[in-house]
Amino acid sequence: MRNTDTWPELLCIFGTGDLGRSLGQRLLQSGYKVVYGSRRPHSCGPVPQGAQVMSHTAAAQSASVVFICIQREHYGFLEQLAPQLKRKVLVDVSNNLRKNLYPEANAEYLQRLTPEAYVVKAFNTLSAWALQNGPSDSNRQVYLCGNSTEAKEAVTEIATRLGFSVQDRGSLSAARELEDFPLQLFPLWRLPLRLAFGLTAFFFFYLLTRDVIYTYATQKKDISFRIMVSLANKVFPIVSLIMLALCYLPGVIAAVFQLYRGTKYRRFPDWLDRWMLCRKQLGLLALAFAFLHVLYTLIIPIRYYVRYKIAAKLDTTIAWRSDSYYSMGILGFGLYVLLGITSLPSVSNALSWREFSFIQSKLGYLTLFFCTFHTYLYGWDMFLRSSYYKWYTPPGYMLSLLVPSVVLVLKLLLLLPCVDRSLTRIRQGWERTEPQDDSQKSLIT
Amino acid sequence: MRNTDTWPELLCIFGTGDLGRSLGQRLLQSGYKVVYGSRRPHSCGPVPQGAQVMSHTAAAQSASVVFICIQREHYGFLEQLAPQLKRKVLVDVSNNLRKNLYPEANAEYLQRLTPEAYVVKAFNTLSAWALQNGPSDSNRQVYLCGNSTEAKEAVTEIATRLGFSVQDRGSLSAARELEDFPLQLFPLWRLPLRLAFGLTAFFFFYLLTRDVIYTYATQKKDISFRIMVSLANKVFPIVSLIMLALCYLPGVIAAVFQLYRGTKYRRFPDWLDRWMLCRKQLGLLALAFAFLHVLYTLIIPIRYYVRYKIAAKLDTTIAWRSDSYYSMGILGFGLYVLLGITSLPSVSNALSWREFSFIQSKLGYLTLFFCTFHTYLYGWDMFLRSSYYKWYTPPGYMLSLLVPSVVLVLKLLLLLPCVDRSLTRIRQGWERTEPQDDSQKSLIT
Amino acid sequence: MRNTDTWPELLCIFGTGDLGRSLGQRLLQSGYKVVYGSRRPHSCGPVPQGAQVMSHTAAAQSASVVFICIQREHYGFLEQLAPQLKRKVLVDVSNNLRKNLYPEANAEYLQRLTPEAYVVKAFNTLSAWALQNGPSDSNRQVYLCGNSTEAKEAVTEIATRLGFSVQDRGSLSAARELEDFPLQLFPLWRLPLRLAFGLTAFFFFYLLTRDVIYTYATQKKDISFRIMVSLANKVFPIVSLIMLALCYLPGVIAAVFQLYRGTKYRRFPDWLDRWMLCRKQLGLLALAFAFLHVLYTLIIPIRYYVRYKIAAKLDTTIAWRSDSYYSMGILGFGLYVLLGITSLPSVSNALSWREFSFIQSKLGYLTLFFCTFHTYLYGWDMFLRSSYYKWYTPPGYMLSLLVPSVVLVLKLLLLLPCVDRSLTRIRQGWERTEPQDDSQKSLIT
Repeated sequence: MRNTDTWPELLCIFGTGDLGRSLGQRLLQSGYKVVYGSRRPHSCGPVPQGAQVMSHTAAAQSASVVFICIQREHYGFLEQLAPQLKRKVLVDVSNNLRKNLYPEANAEYLQRLTPEAYVVKAFNTLSAWALQNGPSDSNRQVYLCGNSTEAKEAVTEIATRLGFSVQDRGSLSAARELEDFPLQLFPLWRLPLRLAFGLTAFFFFYLLTRDVIYTYATQKKDISFRIMVSLANKVFPIVSLIMLALCYLPGVIAAVFQLYRGTKYRRFPDWLDRWMLCRKQLGLLALAFAFLHVLYTLIIPIRYYVRYKIAAKLDTTIAWRSDSYYSMGILGFGLYVLLGITSLPSVSNALSWREFSFIQSKLGYLTLFFCTFHTYLYGWDMFLRSSYYKWYTPPGYMLSLLVPSVVLVLKLLLLLPCVDRSLTRIRQGWERTEPQDDSQKSLIT
Repeated sequence: MRNTDTWPELLCIFGTGDLGRSLGQRLLQSGYKVVYGSRRPHSCGPVPQGAQVMSHTAAAQSASVVFICIQREHYGFLEQLAPQLKRKVLVDVSNNLRKNLYPEANAEYLQRLTPEAYVVKAFNTLSAWALQNGPSDSNRQVYLCGNSTEAKEAVTEIATRLGFSVQDRGSLSAARELEDFPLQLFPLWRLPLRLAFGLTAFFFFYLLTRDVIYTYATQKKDISFRIMVSLANKVFPIVSLIMLALCYLPGVIAAVFQLYRGTKYRRFPDWLDRWMLCRKQLGLLALAFAFLHVLYTLIIPIRYYVRYKIAAKLDTTIAWRSDSYYSMGILGFGLYVLLGITSLPSVSNALSWREFSFIQSKLGYLTLFFCTFHTYLYGWDMFLRSSYYKWYTPPGYMLSLLVPSVVLVLKLLLLLPCVDRSLTRIRQGWERTEPQDDSQKSLIT
Repeated sequence: MRNTDTWPELLCIFGTGDLGRSLGQRLLQSGYKVVYGSRRPHSCGPVPQGAQVMSHTAAAQSASVVFICIQREHYGFLEQLAPQLKRKVLVDVSNNLRKNLYPEANAEYLQRLTPEAYVVKAFNTLSAWALQNGPSDSNRQVYLCGNSTEAKEAVTEIATRLGFSVQDRGSLSAARELEDFPLQLFPLWRLPLRLAFGLTAFFFFYLLTRDVIYTYATQKKDISFRIMVSLANKVFPIVSLIMLALCYLPGVIAAVFQLYRGTKYRRFPDWLDRWMLCRKQLGLLALAFAFLHVLYTLIIPIRYYVRYKIAAKLDTTIAWRSDSYYSMGILGFGLYVLLGITSLPSVSNALSWREFSFIQSKLGYLTLFFCTFHTYLYGWDMFLRSSYYKWYTPPGYMLSLLVPSVVLVLKLLLLLPCVDRSLTRIRQGWERTEPQDDSQKSLIT
């Protein structure tokens, strides 16, 4: 029986860098006592209030669980500490900058350096923000692995008390997989997306030739404004249908293979295996194209081109403008729905943190851009005509453009290389006010 | 190792009120033995079949886990029972009627009264219905907290056997949070909803002035029927676009703050923190408005006003009627989709029981009302014209109105103050057939 | 404390059939050692590489956990092994071919045969594919039940290491429920679906009589082409509205019951209980019909019939064709969205494996069929007219029909009785290359 009298428990953190401080702060908030291990305990920069700083040896001896918040390159000195770390639970929270940088996983390397410690890989799939501020959307799940069941239970208890839910991924040999997880960006979507892009491009140029260029070549008539809606509404259903078929084709091929071979115990060829694994993604992309097709179809009767078909003269500029207007709206709405779907708890849980922030941030701004552009196209040159300023009030759409335009301009400014660079540095822990401490820190941790 | 021979385990429940009886019935169904502790064991009203009733002291001694199904106001007597409750697991299932009613959480108060017992806060986030009938949609998750790991494990085992899944929320200091949980009603949605309402109201009156009133004032022409669709379809996209921008604005402001301060370690001002926490809700509301905008746009060519634009004379009544008809349909459909989305398991799990039943019941009836009204508008005065009764059969839409109208009328009757009051009392456990027992119970438990 | 030095752990599997081999292969891949128990250890057919085969007695003695991968009919011999299985964890993974085949659950029968073993029911809700290849969409959750907490913990650890997440369903008396789970096909949807079908059929014939037949009988005018869209768009909203009302009616009736009886402690009649349990399904079906109604309404202005209303002559064939074209597209899109929704992690987790594969496979092919047919209707006799082959290129829609047609034809071939039969046999483990082993296996396992 675990003794409940020793609460609050004392936990040790090696490393006083950004990650170590974030984690320490959160542990203190959850009621733990925290001691930092540092090479130079007296000049290691600021640590969260309430935490102590000691030498590595003293810190390790005082606690039974040690968080290793050090970069892999600096793991070397832990080999000399191995005797002090004997029978301790070492939590490896490290990540690498890219895949296959080292021959073995960081956690396995750590285990090799300290063979008598119980190494547990954990917390590395969370963003530093989540470590400091607690669980949120796609940062609720902590994956861990390790060879000692007891050690994993101890880490599970800490993670649970911090508000996370834990999923055990088995022995330490799964560490590599966990370390690769935060680096991945939709691995299963890559092939289907390339395919979708390729098919779209092919059919776009194919139909552009057949419809627009052919008409111009044979009749000298410019119907290029049809690109925005008519042509898009031919390309999307075609791609959707082919993708849907490609989603069911591998199952049929697999059945043919089994029939031909007369057994199910022989592995399928690699290309078929890979194809079968991304069927779900193929299907969902096909659905997205079908969805766009539906919307493009439904706006047909509203289009300028259709409404003025009977009218005497077609103004190509207006046709272009109104079709672009509808197109931007539809694409914006499509992205909008995508953002909404990824906000569903079960979907956001299934995404890595990098994937989630990619969608919510990058695609989010794209949605905002489409919708804003859609509104600008709606306005067109309305702002020049005094007749629209009834009773000296501006039209409603103008008011609605204020905030979005400000946000987009600000975002663009933040994307300027010089601004972006210093923002990235700040977010990685750099501080303008104490450049000296910073340079020291990078040596120490 | 836990001895498996002592099964079925004996559990103790203090309190024979509604909650105690529901819980006891469920425990008995799951195979446990149950003993009730009561002040007057011989006159405490009905208990579920198979359960025993004893004095508090005798009941507490017979079991190692005691459920406290008593209201906080009556906790006082437990202080004298403290010696008997030493080393027992006390499960506090209580809730308060509103937040901040007491200076400390009920479970913490209980722990103070019985310092040597292991108090666990649990089950309080479930509805009484779920306790009696087992887990369902938004009643699957049991949150618990407490200072003793062993005690939490014991309660986890019981909850699991009852079919619930358990989430540990850490030490007893989390009890307040758990007790506030069932009282909350979309706390993060409040600000975004108010904003959406405010923006909608502002732009509605702004555009009403510019479009309808201005036209009437300058041209003496009544185009008020445009309110239902044309005006709504201007307000919705405007609000949607602004809300979407407001969803991304705080991120930009935060970056500017960091750039200006040159550090990320200083907290943002409170208003920014609160704003950032509700970005997801802002975005989803923006999506809802965009969705309505899309539907309102797509029905344009069907509208009476548009179809008869070319026609000689516009009948304003018909225009009002047909536009209201489409409006009701769209709003009903929008609510419909909302109901569908909250039925998704992951969404309903993320809602508190109160939130879930609010949406499914209140909004559900609103959906039914919109759809029924939409159908009545479709019918209009058709029921008066004999030509519609072909072969003496009523039109299909009339048949479809039968059940919905009955349901709505019944619901309205149930909402009458006198009916509603006695229904609420019945649902709280009052019984017409045994008024004496009832008055006794309220003294005993 | 569990000793971590005994890793890799040795697990025992009784039975070398298809299931036993799949499971063994997966256990070996996850790092376990595996020993098979067989009646004829020297002639039992192929086992995965790395596994040993022994007699049942020897195998049982070597491990503390024994997986019983034998059909229930052959359990009898385990009674004689009872002494060797004393204090062992027996994992029952069996399923039956249909419900209520036996008076007691397989796992309870196993417990009766070996009273001193710790029987745990587990893994039976997974498909054999998932057992061999690891967790995927609707095969991530392992349900288990048993009377010994320790035994369940041991099985939980194995399942977790295999990558599954575990849900404890309580004591062994839940085994029947777990054994029925893979056999169920939308049990709660059955009543609502029948109702929806009945209402749709009734209103279809009712409106067919009123609209089409009445017109023909009285005016000798054939407007049968209206069936595809106009009539469907009357039937769908009617059914939707009634289903929505039926979703809220039982709640009202229950309140009336409570008011009438003056208590909430008397059970509702069975029919009301059953009705209340399927309210969610009623509501979602109503939503689906409303969704179709919306789409059917939105395409009105695109329809041939509406666009050529003013035109001189209505070509009924073209009206039929274009309306069918839109109908197929809408139905295909509706199914499409359904497929997308069931791909949401939380939804697919809530489905049994049989339900999930029913939707993704059967409805998937139906979607493909509708979409392909929709495209064929779009093309109609276009392929006959040389004017469509501009610059000798075929129209885009033709290219898009290639893959879908091939898939559908292949699938149809695979559905031919003779092909289907041998494919089913192969998927159940039959191999053409070793017919002798196969006949032996069926005797042994």
